Amino acid sequence: MALNITVLGLGPIGSALGLALGTLDPKVLDVGRPVIVGWDRDKRAMADARGRLAADRVEADLVAAVRDADVVIVTVPHADMRDTLSTIAPALKPGTIVTDTASSKADVLEWARTLLPETVEFVGGHPLAGIESGGRELRADIFHDTIYCLAPLPRTRRSALDGVEALVTAIGAKPYYIDAAEHDSYAAAAGHLPLAVAVALMETLSRSGGWREIQAIAGPALLGMTELSAGGSEESTDALVSNTAALEGWLDRMIGTLVEIRRNVRDPVALQAVLEHARDARDSWIRSRPHMRPGEEEFQSNVAEVERPNLSGLFFGRRTMRDKRR
Amino acid sequence: MALNITVLGLGPIGSALGLALGTLDPKVLDVGRPVIVGWDRDKRAMADARGRLAADRVEADLVAAVRDADVVIVTVPHADMRDTLSTIAPALKPGTIVTDTASSKADVLEWARTLLPETVEFVGGHPLAGIESGGRELRADIFHDTIYCLAPLPRTRRSALDGVEALVTAIGAKPYYIDAAEHDSYAAAAGHLPLAVAVALMETLSRSGGWREIQAIAGPALLGMTELSAGGSEESTDALVSNTAALEGWLDRMIGTLVEIRRNVRDPVALQAVLEHARDARDSWIRSRPHMRPGEEEFQSNVAEVERPNLSGLFFGRRTMRDKRR
Repeated sequence: MALNITVLGLGPIGSALGLALGTLDPKVLDVGRPVIVGWDRDKRAMADARGRLAADRVEADLVAAVRDADVVIVTVPHADMRDTLSTIAPALKPGTIVTDTASSKADVLEWARTLLPETVEFVGGHPLAGIESGGRELRADIFHDTIYCLAPLPRTRRSALDGVEALVTAIGAKPYYIDAAEHDSYAAAAGHLPLAVAVALMETLSRSGGWREIQAIAGPALLGMTELSAGGSEESTDALVSNTAALEGWLDRMIGTLVEIRRNVRDPVALQAVLEHARDARDSWIRSRPHMRPGEEEFQSNVAEVERPNLSGLFFGRRTMRDKRR
Repeated sequence: MALNITVLGLGPIGSALGLALGTLDPKVLDVGRPVIVGWDRDKRAMADARGRLAADRVEADLVAAVRDADVVIVTVPHADMRDTLSTIAPALKPGTIVTDTASSKADVLEWARTLLPETVEFVGGHPLAGIESGGRELRADIFHDTIYCLAPLPRTRRSALDGVEALVTAIGAKPYYIDAAEHDSYAAAAGHLPLAVAVALMETLSRSGGWREIQAIAGPALLGMTELSAGGSEESTDALVSNTAALEGWLDRMIGTLVEIRRNVRDPVALQAVLEHARDARDSWIRSRPHMRPGEEEFQSNVAEVERPNLSGLFFGRRTMRDKRR
C-alpha cells in the first residue's frame, strides 16, 4: 500500500517536490516510494509535469485529485490559496495531512484553521530552495541541505508533524520549526525585501534618461544585484503581496537606512563606520556557515543516530507512542 | 628607448595596470614593452607590487618616481588625488601624459587643470574592470573587453589622447570618451548606487533583533545582493564620497522608487506593473550585450582595420599629422 501524495500547483516548487518525492529510493521511507498525483489549473503545466516525471498521474479535477490523498501539498499561488483550501476541505479523508509552500505563514495557518475540518491535519511549510536557487530548471536535488520551515496549527497532532518531517528529511531538506509571525518577518527580510530592492534598483536606473549610457558602463555587479527582478512578475507579485505587513516594516527600515547613508554621503567618518559594520556583519554571516538553523551545529554533534521515520504506522494504522496531541 | 610608465598607488587597480602594461608582448606597441615604475605611500604595497610583477622597479620618493616618466597613471585614493597632483606637478617633464583612474572625473579634471603645468597633458581615465570584477586577485587580463572611460581637458592635445588610447587598447580595454559630468552621473548610477544599496540592505538586516534567524533562512540571493558591501570599507568610502552630488541624486531617486513600491504593496495590479517593467528593462539590457559602448556594434562593423598606434612619434620626437590642439 503506497503513500498517496497529491501536489496542487505544478509550478517550479510543486514540480520539484513532486519529482523529489516521486523519485525517492524505495528504501528511504518505510512505506516505499510514494505515488504522486499532480493537479494544476493550467492543463499545459499538468502535461509538462507528466513529461518531466514531476507526477505519476495528473488529475484535472481538483476535488478528485485530493480524494485518495494521504498527504496534500498545496503549492498554488498565494492569491489562490484560500479558495483552494476551501474547495478541497469537504473532499479530504480523515487523517489526511495538508501542507503548503507559501512564503507567508500566518494567513495560510488562519485559513487552514477555519476552512479545513478538524479531522484533517495541517502543517504550514515553506521550502527555502525556491528563494535561494532562483533557477527554473527542474531538479530533484534542489532541496538538499536547504532549510524547510514548518509551522503547525495548535491543534496539529505530533504524528502529522512526524509525517511531514519524514518527507522533508527524505528529500534532503532540514526541518526548521518556526512561529508563523516570526517566519513571516524573517521571510520578508531574507526574501521579499531583497526582491523589492532588486526591482527598485532596476526601476530607478531604467527609468532614467541616461539608462542607455548606464547600461554600457554597468557590469556584473549590477547584473547580480538586480537578478531577483528577472523572475516571473506574476509569481514575484504574489510573493510580495502575500506578506504585506512584514514587508512594509522592512521597506520602512530599508528606506530609513538609505536616508541615513544619503545624509552621510559628505561625511567620510560616519559613512565608513556604516560600511565597516555592514562588511563585518556579512563576514561573520559567511563564517557562521549559511543554511544552518540557529544552534544546528551544536545540535548535530549531539545526535548519535537518526531514527527511521514510521510512516506506515502513521498512515496505515499502527500508531506510535508519540501520537498524541501537541 | 623604452616608454617609462609610472604608476602612483599600487592598490588593486594600480597593480593590475602595472602588471598588464609591464607584461605586454613587445610587439603590441611600436615602442616595445614599457618599463613600469611603481610608487605607493605604503612600503608593503610596493614590496607586494614588485613580488607580483606589477612594477619593474619601485621608488619610495613620489617626486623621484615621476621625474623620468613619459606617462604617469595616478591610482591613489580620491582623498589623496589633489595633493598627489600638486606634489608631482613641478617634477613632470614637458610632454608627460598624466592620467588617473578615479571613479569621479569632474573634480579630478578641475584639479588637473589648475594644478598641472600647461606643458603636461592630462587625460582623465576610469577603467570599469574594478567595479565589475569586485575581485582582489591580481591578473593582467581583467581589462580585456571592459570599457575604459576617457575624459580629456579642453587643452589636451590629440596626440596625448592617441597615446592613452593606445595603452588602453593594448591592455585589451575599449576607450570610451565621455563628458566628465555625464560620466560622474552614470558611474554613480552603475557603481556607487549599487554599492550604497548593498550596504543599506546588509545594514538593515544585520541591525535587526532577528538577524540570527534571518541568516539561517537567507540564501545565495541575499549573499549576492550584498556582495558589494564586502569590499574594503576604506576604498568603498573613498569612492562614495568622491562623487557626492551625483550619488545623492541617485539615492533620492532610489528612495523614491522604494517609497512607491511600499505604497503599492497592497495593490497587486500596480505592483505587477512595476515588476514587469523592471524585468523587461533587465531582459533588454542583457539582450543588448553588456559592455558595449552605445553605438559600438554599428561602429565596429564600419571599421575595416585598426591603425597601429604611433607612440614613438608621440614620445620620442616624430610627431604625426594629427598632433594638433583639439
